[in-house]
This record gives sequence, structure tokens and C-alpha cells, in this order.
Amino acid sequence: MRLSQSFIKTLRSAPKDETARGAQYLSRAGYIYKELAGVYDYLPLGLRVLDNIKTIVREELNNIGAEECLMSTLQNPEPWIKTDRWDIEKMDIWFRTQLAAGGELGLGPTHEEPFTEMLRNYVSSYKDLPFAVYQIQTKFRNELRAKSGIMRGREFLMKDMYSFCATTEDHDKFYHEAEKAYMRIYDRLGIGNDTYETFASGGVFSKYSHEFQTICEVGEDNIYYNKDKSVVLNEEVLIDEVMNDLGVKRDELEMTKAAEVGNIFTLGTKFSAPLGLEFTDQAGERKPVLMGCYGIGISRVMGVIAEKMCDDKGLVWPENIAPYKYYLIGIGDEGMKKAEELYHGREEEILFDDRDLRPGEKFTDAELMGIPYRVVVSDKTLADGKAEVTDRKTGETKLVALTEIF
Amino acid sequence: MRLSQSFIKTLRSAPKDETARGAQYLSRAGYIYKELAGVYDYLPLGLRVLDNIKTIVREELNNIGAEECLMSTLQNPEPWIKTDRWDIEKMDIWFRTQLAAGGELGLGPTHEEPFTEMLRNYVSSYKDLPFAVYQIQTKFRNELRAKSGIMRGREFLMKDMYSFCATTEDHDKFYHEAEKAYMRIYDRLGIGNDTYETFASGGVFSKYSHEFQTICEVGEDNIYYNKDKSVVLNEEVLIDEVMNDLGVKRDELEMTKAAEVGNIFTLGTKFSAPLGLEFTDQAGERKPVLMGCYGIGISRVMGVIAEKMCDDKGLVWPENIAPYKYYLIGIGDEGMKKAEELYHGREEEILFDDRDLRPGEKFTDAELMGIPYRVVVSDKTLADGKAEVTDRKTGETKLVALTEIF
Repeated sequence: MRLSQSFIKTLRSAPKDETARGAQYLSRAGYIYKELAGVYDYLPLGLRVLDNIKTIVREELNNIGAEECLMSTLQNPEPWIKTDRWDIEKMDIWFRTQLAAGGELGLGPTHEEPFTEMLRNYVSSYKDLPFAVYQIQTKFRNELRAKSGIMRGREFLMKDMYSFCATTEDHDKFYHEAEKAYMRIYDRLGIGNDTYETFASGGVFSKYSHEFQTICEVGEDNIYYNKDKSVVLNEEVLIDEVMNDLGVKRDELEMTKAAEVGNIFTLGTKFSAPLGLEFTDQAGERKPVLMGCYGIGISRVMGVIAEKMCDDKGLVWPENIAPYKYYLIGIGDEGMKKAEELYHGREEEILFDDRDLRPGEKFTDAELMGIPYRVVVSDKTLADGKAEVTDRKTGETKLVALTEIF
Repeated sequence: MRLSQSFIKTLRSAPKDETARGAQYLSRAGYIYKELAGVYDYLPLGLRVLDNIKTIVREELNNIGAEECLMSTLQNPEPWIKTDRWDIEKMDIWFRTQLAAGGELGLGPTHEEPFTEMLRNYVSSYKDLPFAVYQIQTKFRNELRAKSGIMRGREFLMKDMYSFCATTEDHDKFYHEAEKAYMRIYDRLGIGNDTYETFASGGVFSKYSHEFQTICEVGEDNIYYNKDKSVVLNEEVLIDEVMNDLGVKRDELEMTKAAEVGNIFTLGTKFSAPLGLEFTDQAGERKPVLMGCYGIGISRVMGVIAEKMCDDKGLVWPENIAPYKYYLIGIGDEGMKKAEELYHGREEEILFDDRDLRPGEKFTDAELMGIPYRVVVSDKTLADGKAEVTDRKTGETKLVALTEIF
């Protein structure tokens, strides 16, 4: 992208109620625009980050055989009434709306019910199982308070996956595949080293669920970990019974702030039974399907990474999700000419700052935007056939031969 | 995709209130699922078609320099009050919802207001203009009646683009670029030959707007055309003044049913003036920005193509947007083995029917799903190193050497 052709420019200030540092940078650097608390627009750079995250998530889920769908936002109350989740007392984050033709609808805060209901058309025998479906779709949750920028939104992009199995063995097998896929996703997103699978409270059908928590100063959760025993617990399960289960003592656990970046949950027949998603097993008996659900907040992860990976100059994107890999600047006549040449054919990986600005302003913007490598071509560096390449993360600058940069 | 691993199977019947033939096929072939009238889910095959349409639209808009964003669904009333479009009397298709924290919000039926408002942060001088932004995003319109499957939805996927210029010349230039991009899009979607740019009613800032209408039996519009003079009019502008303008007489015009697949509109300062999106011109004077808007209903276009391109056996997708290019069937031991071999490495272009079904059932599904080429490898065809390739559109079958198919 040529910055001279983009409407984006960096701003001096962020919305004044934006307290988290990453969220301030995302606003100032032209990644997001705040519509209202918990509701954001994604500008070209921000959309590219979201898309990069989506691609990684999609690839890893396709790899474990899950199929992608796209479910509607508008929700018919019926299936939610059957599972007892329509009532505001039971689920207090519903946004509701009225059909002009009559009748109340909800805006989907999650999608167990519509997937379960839809799949009644597609499941009849054990031969139709197991399988998993997912979607990357906008969710709506009527939070009383929304804060921390895109980390906790009222409208946000989520990947939600659901598995459907005939037997506990098949369910456990897929659940484990999903756990591994999640860790591969966090690795590729650049937060693998700081992301832990934690024990969290379960439900009727399983003692525990699991969360994926990324160590992060502005995270909303406290997690308790023991590195030697590879045990990590959420605060809600920090009780004797659970610690006994996992073979750790309270004083062996260290606390740290963390942000949830995913969760997986064994649902059993919680949704399939009331909604009648059944199959005929090998003995000819009708049984409800065993389900699991697996979430990753796509826009939330972007928010967590922005908070976690920034310094006093701005954002510091991991290479895999950065909107562009290189921030290119040409200085002087020859430098500008060579920069044009280098940009040509590399439009997808280079953010080319061809604006009529002083180099210092461009350097500041490159840092605020957090592009991994700044490449400066000047008349001076060109004398040796080189460019100055600066690593955003380390700040280290090297002279590199033009033929070896890209 | 391996059909044996997918949850999708073809269904014997469509929802009973689904009257349009294409919509019935889309349901039966496993492309869409009806949540309620005008609200649909996209199943794996359907999502692939949507994605193929999105890719074509995106490429052509990026080519004319437009930048992609993603705006929010939840809408703050303020800017809509300023442009006098919040009132239900003025805009009767609003879905409204209440914030738990207090206050009413709308679900975006279009996005002139939020784009205009957001861009006040990015436009100050004539040097910041011209530019264009677009998004591919879910829109909500509270239609009293929704019909014709995904052709007219209450929740639907739309591409909406907006241009921002300092001068009429720049606006006209971009408008013309957009017209050309639209025709390239329809060409690539496989409906170029039957899609016409029509004169439609304008507004305060231009005498006419333009629609793109595709000839289609179940279309909701009547268009009037004269092939020799290359003039096409919407019914609403079929009046003497307009016919005089365009140099045609009523009896020179033929009528046909058509479906709108896009529209472009000169907005002038209709939104920029009340919302204060201004720039300083070369003389130092403050002026409102000149805007245009440019829509394509992505899911609607998919619906129109499904209606237009189907026969008594099912859907007939154009190659560019088909979910897969080939439907592969192996018959007999050698045939199945060779089919597995051919599938390997071509997972993205082949829908492999490896299910334990009779060939006749597979042939019927291949036709219903409308995959462009059916490839059958049997012990018999293999004797000559060939496969039977059937063109879904013409029904023509040829024996083709295996090395020459893909």
C-alpha cells in the first residue's frame, strides 16, 4: 500500500475514554475507530491484521477437518426457549430487536442453538458422525460495561466451532485435536510462549473446561501456575478439591494477570437433548449427539496482542499478523527512485511511505504502526547497494544488501 | 472436499414457503439453510460461492484504488439524526435495539453516516482527496415481506463503497471508473452478457442514478431497453422528459424482467454537509466533500445467479464462482483408486464424492449441486487412460485423457 494514496494518517490523540495503551495506539495508528464503547470499525490496516488472524485460525481448523459455515445474526427465539437461554434472567447479554412484520428476534451472542437446530436436517445415523463445524462471525453481547478497547466488545468478531460425536471416545479425540490446533494457532500468532491452557470450571457434562490464557498486564483474569508441574488454574477453580486433583498445593502456585484468548468446553447433550439432535446408533437406538464448543475471539486476540506487544513508541506486531512486513522509506532523489523500484511487485508486503513528509515524521509513524521491518533507502546507503533495515522489536539497525532484504 | 467427511448431503425437499426455483435448489443442495424469512445460514458450499464472489468484487475495487474497511453493525443514532434518517417515518427499514447500559441503537442498513462521521478524522485539506473506501459487511433491513430466497433478505451480505472528492471532475472520473469496474465484476461473475447499466431516478445532486440490472425471470423489476441505441431505463424513469433526454421513444423500448445487482449514486454533499465532512480548498475556503455511493448485494447476486442459472436438474454455477470446479466420482476398484490419486493435491478444486453410494445417486447430486464438470473414472475408462468429463451446462460428455483434465 502507498501511504500517499491511503486515507489513513496517524493521529495525535486517541479517544479520551480509551485507557489501555494498546487500544490508544490502535486508534492513533489508524487501525480502528471507536463508534461507541465496545463497538469499533476496522480501518484498512486493522482489517488486514484481522484477516491475517482469521487465515491462521482457518488453516488450523481446516487441518483438523472442521468445515466452515456462516450462521445468521438474527435469532429466532424458539430454539433458545427450548434450551432455556432466551430469558434475560438466564442470559443477560442479549440484544433484542422487533421484526416489522411482528415478533421479537435476538442478535446471536453465541451459536450452539442455531447450529444444533440446523444440523437436525443432516444427522440421522451414527454414520453421519463425527464432524465439526465452525464460523468466523460477528457476535453481539449487551455488556453493561465495555472496556479495554477491542479486548471486550459489545460487537466483536469470533471464531466459534462445534463438534458432534456419537461416542465419548470420538468426542475426547476431537477435543484433544482441538487443544493441539489451538496451541498451534497461538504459536503462529506469536503468543505461544506466553499462552497457557488452564483448568476452568466445567458444567454438568464435564468436571473442567479449558481456557487459553495469555499473560498480559491489562488482562482481566488472574491465573495460577506452577511451571515445574505444568499446571495452570483459573481463579474460579482455586479450591482444595481441584488442587488435589491436579497434585499441586496453593503455595506452589504463582499468580499472574492474563487475558483469555480461547476456551473449549464439553457440552455433552446439553443442547442436543432439548433440541432433538439425535442419531440412530449401531444397535438401532436413538440417542442425542454429544457436543463440544470451541471459541476464539478474533478481534479480542488482536486486542490482546496489541496490549502485550507494544512499547513507548507504539505497536510491535508479530510478523505473521502484521498488516505489512516492511515499512519502506526513500530518502533523496536516488533513494526515492530505488524505493519505487523495490515497491513494484511487492505491494502486498510493503507499506510504502511515499508521502511528502520529512524522514523523521515517517520514522515516527513506522514505529507507531508497529510494522516489523523499516527499510530506508537513501542516496548514501545506495552508494554501497544497500538499505538500512531496522527491526521494530529490537530497535537494531543493519545495513543490508538490496538483493538480500526481501 | 471429500463428501464422505462433510456433514452436507442433498435433501429431498426445500422449506415449503420457498417458492423460487433457485432458492429451492440452494436449500436442497446444501448451500443455504433458512432461519426465517429473509434470514439464511451459509453452509460450506454456499460460503465458498459467497467467498468467490467477494474475491472478484474485492480485486476489481482494489484495482481502482478503493481501500477496504469493516464498519460496525451497531449504530449510534446521532449522525443519523443529523442527516434526518433516524426517524422510522423517513427510513422504515431500521432494526432497533436497546443498550443494557441505556440508549437506543440501530442495526446498520447502509453506512453513509458512519463512514462520513469517521472520515472527519482523516480529511482536512484538498490534498487528502480524492479517495474511496468500501466494505463487505452484513446489512440489516426490517422488510415487511422478505421473499425470493437470498435475493431479498432482512440480513444480507453487501459490498458498499463510498467515494470522497474535492471537485465534480474528480467525482465524475471515479464514478466512471466504478461503472467500468462494475461491468468487469459482472463479466467475471458470468452474468456480464445479461447485465445492463440502467438509468434510474436521481436525487437532489444528480438527475439520474444508475442501476445494474440482470435479466432474470423472477426479478422484481421491469426494465425497458433499446439494443440499437444501447439505452436501458428503469420503469420509474419511463417518462417523456427522460426519453427525450436519452433520444428514445416509448415504442422503441422493449420490456423485460430483471433483478437489480448493483447501483451507483452521486450523493453530492447530502451527507457531508450535515455531518461536517469538510476540506480546505486551494484558496483556503472550507467546503463539504463531494460523495458517491456504490452498492453490490453479494448474497443477492448469488441468489440471482442461482435463479438465472439452473435447469430442471438443479443449479448450474458459472466456473468462476462455483464452490468447486470438478465433481469427481470413481467407479470400480481401479476407478476409486485412481480417483483418490487424482484428488490428492487438488482438494481446493475438486468435490470428491467418495461416499458409499450408487453412481446414479452421485450423478443426481452432482447435477443438483451444479458443479461445472463431472469427472467419472471407471475401470472401463481407465483402460484407455481416460475419464468421462461431463459439462454441467451443456450436458455434453467427452472421454478425456487423464493427463489433460485438470
